[in-house]
Amino acid sequence: MTTTTETAATSAQTSAPAITDGEIFAAHEGGKLSAELTSPLETQRDLSIAYTPGVAKVCTAIKDEPELARTHTWTGRLVAVISDGSAVLGLGDIGPKASLPVMEGKCALFKSFSGLNAIPIVLDTNDTDEIVETIVRMAPTFGAVNLEDISAPRCFEIEDRVKAALDIPVMHDDQHGTAVVVLAALTNALRVVDKSFESLRVVVSGAGAAGVAVVKILRDAGVGDVVVLDSKGVVEAGRSDLTETKQALASETNPRGIAGGIDAALNGADAFIGVSGGTIAEEHLSQMADDAIIFALSNPNPEVLPDIAAKYATVVATGRSDFPNQINNVLAFPGIFRGALDVGATDITDAMKLAAARAIADLVGDDLRPDYIVPGALDERVAPAVATAVETAADADGVARE
Amino acid sequence: MTTTTETAATSAQTSAPAITDGEIFAAHEGGKLSAELTSPLETQRDLSIAYTPGVAKVCTAIKDEPELARTHTWTGRLVAVISDGSAVLGLGDIGPKASLPVMEGKCALFKSFSGLNAIPIVLDTNDTDEIVETIVRMAPTFGAVNLEDISAPRCFEIEDRVKAALDIPVMHDDQHGTAVVVLAALTNALRVVDKSFESLRVVVSGAGAAGVAVVKILRDAGVGDVVVLDSKGVVEAGRSDLTETKQALASETNPRGIAGGIDAALNGADAFIGVSGGTIAEEHLSQMADDAIIFALSNPNPEVLPDIAAKYATVVATGRSDFPNQINNVLAFPGIFRGALDVGATDITDAMKLAAARAIADLVGDDLRPDYIVPGALDERVAPAVATAVETAADADGVARE
Repeated sequence: MTTTTETAATSAQTSAPAITDGEIFAAHEGGKLSAELTSPLETQRDLSIAYTPGVAKVCTAIKDEPELARTHTWTGRLVAVISDGSAVLGLGDIGPKASLPVMEGKCALFKSFSGLNAIPIVLDTNDTDEIVETIVRMAPTFGAVNLEDISAPRCFEIEDRVKAALDIPVMHDDQHGTAVVVLAALTNALRVVDKSFESLRVVVSGAGAAGVAVVKILRDAGVGDVVVLDSKGVVEAGRSDLTETKQALASETNPRGIAGGIDAALNGADAFIGVSGGTIAEEHLSQMADDAIIFALSNPNPEVLPDIAAKYATVVATGRSDFPNQINNVLAFPGIFRGALDVGATDITDAMKLAAARAIADLVGDDLRPDYIVPGALDERVAPAVATAVETAADADGVARE
Repeated sequence: MTTTTETAATSAQTSAPAITDGEIFAAHEGGKLSAELTSPLETQRDLSIAYTPGVAKVCTAIKDEPELARTHTWTGRLVAVISDGSAVLGLGDIGPKASLPVMEGKCALFKSFSGLNAIPIVLDTNDTDEIVETIVRMAPTFGAVNLEDISAPRCFEIEDRVKAALDIPVMHDDQHGTAVVVLAALTNALRVVDKSFESLRVVVSGAGAAGVAVVKILRDAGVGDVVVLDSKGVVEAGRSDLTETKQALASETNPRGIAGGIDAALNGADAFIGVSGGTIAEEHLSQMADDAIIFALSNPNPEVLPDIAAKYATVVATGRSDFPNQINNVLAFPGIFRGALDVGATDITDAMKLAAARAIADLVGDDLRPDYIVPGALDERVAPAVATAVETAADADGVARE
């Protein structure tokens, strides 16, 4: 694994042979995960220790002191990556079975980047109540829950209810992983353009899972002027077509009472954050303030390509590995879960997310440049730094068990 | 791994240093399983193949052709070991969390003996409806279901309903794994004493999960005269205290209409199979027929110790590794699931179980002796032979996909 962004970015930009479908399917044959033993079972003595009769001692100890399950089973380091397959990548609602390769990939990322064990659990239901009760029933199986690719607005209620029901780390990564990395990137972008959170006007395009979480973390970070857009225009109190989630967004954002479309929103804006899956016309970007920031995060097709965005902005980022400044959740979730599990956190709090964002931003340090505002996706320093910051924040928030 | 029973039996009988509690707890620290990658994720190219954007191709292919999930995710070789922790080893109802070390051990056995991946899923409910619906909802997650340590009589209905709902291999191992190995052992015991299934009088002590399944497989194998005992005595139609399961047992067994206790049942019996957790007095055994067979399978304390049983029987077996003729489920379940998954079986049928028993018995071959009626637990020949037999039977039964 490479250790700096530059190396990763360089190798991505040199012309490696194109990846063929044959190569992709061959790499998926038999799946991407394997359940292995931590010690071999080769002798009768091995069996007597790991299985009957020896194992009964450990069972009895856990029965008497349930906390021992964290240290004497694999659950203390085990994340369940749980999805109903309703909002998978750019593919949409493809169902649980077809979502499995993504979930296996996510589990592989957990292992590679944080050393945690992770297993995919895909659910053959889209019903909020059923998803919540199913997760709660199987909760003794794992140590933490990464909700993945569950469509909005169900994802909000599902995460809220599972968090409330369980005393283990629970996070919907499409929301908070994205939000954490966006905040990290924005923190450093502001250093480049010498602006502050407090004075910033931010436009967030997209009011789905990522958009809602980005707005929340920006507000937690001190941004007072956020305007959110959905496919119908600015999310504002005067609209009669808002869902409950969007009504809440409307009441918490848009302090200048803007109505209308993207042109009204972008007029004088300091930062544009696209998590919409749509596109944005060049003419609107031209109305942004001086030293603008554009994060066009839709994948695989950004809302605007970086070379166009660069005409109107000082700092540009996307979600893609083949452009500079890739805003990639893999910078956040491995370290967040690793830190949370390492201290036996009973929750993932807002302060833990803010600490994760700060840790990611801080790693860039003096190397900060307009085209290097976040570490590269393969930067091995990131997960340990995030984990440490998250542990400290968990401790300060009183949610750490140890 | 040793390759013959003799080696295993010998090493178990020589005086290895006693296993200490410290050694057991140390071996469980951090758990016994690990989720590993089948290929490393080290470069941007690796990520682009295993995760975005490459993975989308595989997702789309599975969406179009769901059968591809068997070959292009890990589910085609993945067994879920599912328990509610209600009937764990000799420990009883210790709950899901405390049962985890046993389930991890079971998963480790799956890997060691069959090469299959297995993950523990423990459920925080004892409700039959909830267990069934939870398993059905998460079924796209795995390729087969090993139900484990679920108490009777719920285990019968749960297995029946999950089997009916899913088109993948499902088996409650405490029932059928035990039954298959008992049938294999009895097959060879009859060769030793030169008796036939058809002429046999068998007494089964215990009407729980194992007892019910043993009775069923004995009847499937041609034994006409089976008498079952529960803690109140012979299970017979004249009793007013029988559950639904035991009423069915009463109507299918006890052709001579015996009533009373163990003495009435054992009088003239050819074989005693103990799966009761109780003990049996020497005086009752003395009433058995010549060349009797005694399988005292309760663990860790057999219904009667082998040296006592040997006074009244020609063939004696237990569930323990430190006596000859260990009747251990590990001889059955790895090969049964491996064979079933290898042919994409939609079910585990009675014929597949009978074939597994025959394959286990046949491996003993000309080495047959009163104290060697089944291969040893560590005999590496067993799982492949069972898998092959199960594949053939699945094919003959029309439940094989390939």
